[in-house]
Amino acid sequence: MDRYIRTDLALELKDDVEEGSLDGIKIYTKKNQGTNIVETRIDVMNEKGEKTLGKPVGTYITLESTALRGSDEDIHKPLSETLHKYLKTMIRGKEKILVVGLGNREVTPDALGPYVVDNLYITRHLLAEGIVSSVREISAISPGVMAQTGIESSTILKALCEKVKPDVVIAVDALAAREPSRLNSTIQICDTGISPGAGVGNNRIMLNEETLGVKVIAIGVPTVISVPAIVYQAIDSMLEAILDKNVKVEDSLSEEDKYNVACELLEPELAAMFVTPKNIDEAVKRVSFTISEAINKFFEL
Amino acid sequence: MDRYIRTDLALELKDDVEEGSLDGIKIYTKKNQGTNIVETRIDVMNEKGEKTLGKPVGTYITLESTALRGSDEDIHKPLSETLHKYLKTMIRGKEKILVVGLGNREVTPDALGPYVVDNLYITRHLLAEGIVSSVREISAISPGVMAQTGIESSTILKALCEKVKPDVVIAVDALAAREPSRLNSTIQICDTGISPGAGVGNNRIMLNEETLGVKVIAIGVPTVISVPAIVYQAIDSMLEAILDKNVKVEDSLSEEDKYNVACELLEPELAAMFVTPKNIDEAVKRVSFTISEAINKFFEL
Amino acid sequence: MDRYIRTDLALELKDDVEEGSLDGIKIYTKKNQGTNIVETRIDVMNEKGEKTLGKPVGTYITLESTALRGSDEDIHKPLSETLHKYLKTMIRGKEKILVVGLGNREVTPDALGPYVVDNLYITRHLLAEGIVSSVREISAISPGVMAQTGIESSTILKALCEKVKPDVVIAVDALAAREPSRLNSTIQICDTGISPGAGVGNNRIMLNEETLGVKVIAIGVPTVISVPAIVYQAIDSMLEAILDKNVKVEDSLSEEDKYNVACELLEPELAAMFVTPKNIDEAVKRVSFTISEAINKFFEL
Amino acid sequence: MDRYIRTDLALELKDDVEEGSLDGIKIYTKKNQGTNIVETRIDVMNEKGEKTLGKPVGTYITLESTALRGSDEDIHKPLSETLHKYLKTMIRGKEKILVVGLGNREVTPDALGPYVVDNLYITRHLLAEGIVSSVREISAISPGVMAQTGIESSTILKALCEKVKPDVVIAVDALAAREPSRLNSTIQICDTGISPGAGVGNNRIMLNEETLGVKVIAIGVPTVISVPAIVYQAIDSMLEAILDKNVKVEDSLSEEDKYNVACELLEPELAAMFVTPKNIDEAVKRVSFTISEAINKFFEL
Repeated sequence: MDRYIRTDLALELKDDVEEGSLDGIKIYTKKNQGTNIVETRIDVMNEKGEKTLGKPVGTYITLESTALRGSDEDIHKPLSETLHKYLKTMIRGKEKILVVGLGNREVTPDALGPYVVDNLYITRHLLAEGIVSSVREISAISPGVMAQTGIESSTILKALCEKVKPDVVIAVDALAAREPSRLNSTIQICDTGISPGAGVGNNRIMLNEETLGVKVIAIGVPTVISVPAIVYQAIDSMLEAILDKNVKVEDSLSEEDKYNVACELLEPELAAMFVTPKNIDEAVKRVSFTISEAINKFFEL
Repeated sequence: MDRYIRTDLALELKDDVEEGSLDGIKIYTKKNQGTNIVETRIDVMNEKGEKTLGKPVGTYITLESTALRGSDEDIHKPLSETLHKYLKTMIRGKEKILVVGLGNREVTPDALGPYVVDNLYITRHLLAEGIVSSVREISAISPGVMAQTGIESSTILKALCEKVKPDVVIAVDALAAREPSRLNSTIQICDTGISPGAGVGNNRIMLNEETLGVKVIAIGVPTVISVPAIVYQAIDSMLEAILDKNVKVEDSLSEEDKYNVACELLEPELAAMFVTPKNIDEAVKRVSFTISEAINKFFEL
Repeated sequence: MDRYIRTDLALELKDDVEEGSLDGIKIYTKKNQGTNIVETRIDVMNEKGEKTLGKPVGTYITLESTALRGSDEDIHKPLSETLHKYLKTMIRGKEKILVVGLGNREVTPDALGPYVVDNLYITRHLLAEGIVSSVREISAISPGVMAQTGIESSTILKALCEKVKPDVVIAVDALAAREPSRLNSTIQICDTGISPGAGVGNNRIMLNEETLGVKVIAIGVPTVISVPAIVYQAIDSMLEAILDKNVKVEDSLSEEDKYNVACELLEPELAAMFVTPKNIDEAVKRVSFTISEAINKFFEL
Repeated sequence: MDRYIRTDLALELKDDVEEGSLDGIKIYTKKNQGTNIVETRIDVMNEKGEKTLGKPVGTYITLESTALRGSDEDIHKPLSETLHKYLKTMIRGKEKILVVGLGNREVTPDALGPYVVDNLYITRHLLAEGIVSSVREISAISPGVMAQTGIESSTILKALCEKVKPDVVIAVDALAAREPSRLNSTIQICDTGISPGAGVGNNRIMLNEETLGVKVIAIGVPTVISVPAIVYQAIDSMLEAILDKNVKVEDSLSEEDKYNVACELLEPELAAMFVTPKNIDEAVKRVSFTISEAINKFFEL
């Protein structure tokens, strides 16, 4: 029960919910035999579900593949095909796609979105100039982060959506997870939008149908863990270790106590930091390529 | 008289105009003794001037410094101060600045605009959040090129100006020149706007007060020469060389003839190419830094 | 007969040789029906062949695929497989490979080598640490160019080969071609080594068995055309155009004359410049990926 | 007493040493009034000092400037001048300098070394070609990290030193600190060499006079904190917090116990992770520029 600890993954939030109390939530899981990809679908059905999970009504799909973290290239094709399949279900025949690469291309674990945009087949201008026809209209932008532009991503994108008039926005961003094992090996897709900069701890105005005026499908990959998450887990393990020494401390600290202590003992400077693996360059390059491929399959109508 | 040959520099267009026919144009030149910076100001006064020069009514300032091409770091300070001085005259107390870095950061000679934006002090979000006060509002964006976004830069920027409401836009882009000696050693500032992608031959919709609804000051540096410009000059020199051999050919070819021949004999693929120096990486890095510094001096109100 | 005009492609040099005079050279060409890849093999057999072609004794293979220039992703698999097949023949069972990415990653058309190295599976350290076994030893380096290091690539690589002791070096670099249509659509493989920086006109000390003490297989892709090549072709076409006007000039200029005129009329600054297409970023990314994949297939012994 | 917790800073190690036991160590500190730069010099005099501090005999200088972390550009000039002054003392008239940029340019907090090399004035090739004279010979290389090359940096650099024969090597690398407040605001210079990859936790073979055959001066800036350091500090604070609740636990855990517990409770995956601030892109760019400037001042003999 770590519900005070930051995660962007519905899958990890679900772990916090006590069994039997999944009111308003439906969960389906399947493991593909050949590819070892685990697909989890969490439907938040209503307000009760929202409260239980802490996420708005909608569908959250998670694809997990430990192979994604290794250098096994064979996983890309099935994974990008699975990702495309779910995106297709969510897009439901909508024709014009604007892909948004959120994040800062100069900070490796935050560069996922811009890297995905770098590898897309863009068609909007080719259609407008009559160079191609009978392909889907795909446009894209990597707006940069607030420290680079001074402007909220939601402001830039709302302005752009009003002019470009896409039928759907696909927003790609780096996320934060709690579990180190999930970094760079999990892809989350949801139809409820996204808060840009979530992964690196810059909470900004949500991008969703309400703010942009067009449906927003979010694709996210956890590339970082927040420092409080690491510290909380350490404290938790510490207390257990102490308990094993037969010292009664646990009783004196509730879940919330522990969280508050974790926050208190963090120097304020640590709040603006994140934890990321040393091989983050290869990991982000690999998974961004898989996502680009999944989106590029929309090229044909 | 090379007026058929592409250049983005008012200074080079001026060379085409025959002496005594500078109707509607005023030209001032001065050379700074200490720094060797040559400052040329060309005022296009009226329609006559527009016809003569082939540029809209407005002011075109060119700063030339051969030292900019070498590794002489001492030139940066006086050059960025001179640039700032002219920008200040053009901005005339306008307070909120949106800087636009045009061009493609993945193609070295086209990366000038994005590089300039990378080195700016952005304040708009800090002012909004109350972190700073009494500084000028500066925001910025590098929108990417049409092949990356599928969207005209003018569309993105018009949308953005409507929301961000800057008092003035400073647009930075790479330009094309005719003279190899001017590459990376000349900075042009004008108050009439800019056509993005001019340098690399992608003529797009103009960015100016008419299209963006806000005054546009353009800063450009020639980083490339167009292939037709190179070929035209070669043909021209060739014909002179032949003439020297006492063969009468020149008579048979008018200025326009020569230009048409130059275009005809170019394989169509060459039209999408440009000429650039081998050390373009250092040159663009150096001059982009000078421009960033000149803009950063607007930080203080 | 354009033999004065710079090209790094044996294929283009061959075009200069008059028919019937192919003494010391053998040429085989085949076109793959399914993939449209044209494979040309030129064997320079002896000193006579060296004189005829202007390239040292050895084998030069060229793979041409117009599809490589488009966004047709289907060409990558067959092209990287064909490239791997020829590399395998040249490597002949040698076990330890050192891949060298020549060129300057900061100048887009010169970044081919570093980009290829960026996408390799490196195994040498994993073998040394016992993390993997039964895979081929692959190491790699992108040494940078002389303007960045102050050191000849041949010096760095000779030093490295003495310590790392590879069985074979695969050196990847950008090349210069004459024909615009060949840029980014042609891959040349040869077993005689390479002169780093050839493409962008920086002729350096050769990398070959003589200088490095180990066999050097070179993979090159033309990404630029030299300015003299463009100018020469323009002059040539111009003279033909003039001839069509019934003016006798051609007689007065020999092949060598024309070349000398081309050189004379070039401003010296143009010698340090090159011609490259506007979409060079996408083109280099695409072909570097194909080459990386071909080399990565050596992973398994 | 946190001496089990990883830091690359002599300054932080010194804090672990109990007062009065500074046997074999001499420490001098001064604060510059105008610039607020704090200069600390730690001399490890002999074997006793080595044991006390855990660092080899030599001189360790630390420059601290909180201004370096802000956007105050005025600090660069005095800081790079102070850095140059100390480098000069250590170089002692040695003429030929090889600068080594350690680290991975694709991982932002590890890119310090390559970024410094990117901004150097390289002269070795210009001297060799007679283009300049009466300047110092400066060469440089960014060899890449083991995951990119498969080769130990020490192997590459020993090979290179044998050929290039510099009089001194200046090696620049990112470091790890314990204190969040020291990240990107501290520069350490020492004359005892460096272990590449220290900052991101990849301990490799030392680069020093013994391994390279030439004196090695190391410049380092802490850009990351190791995960165990964060966790250890959290545990420590936690135990204090518990103590405050009058529960006697502390007694049951020695310093070493605590460290072991910290290690045990870390998932092994966390060992390959690091903690870094969100604005690491700006921070690394800024400090790398200061270091480049300090080295560039060696240009003149």
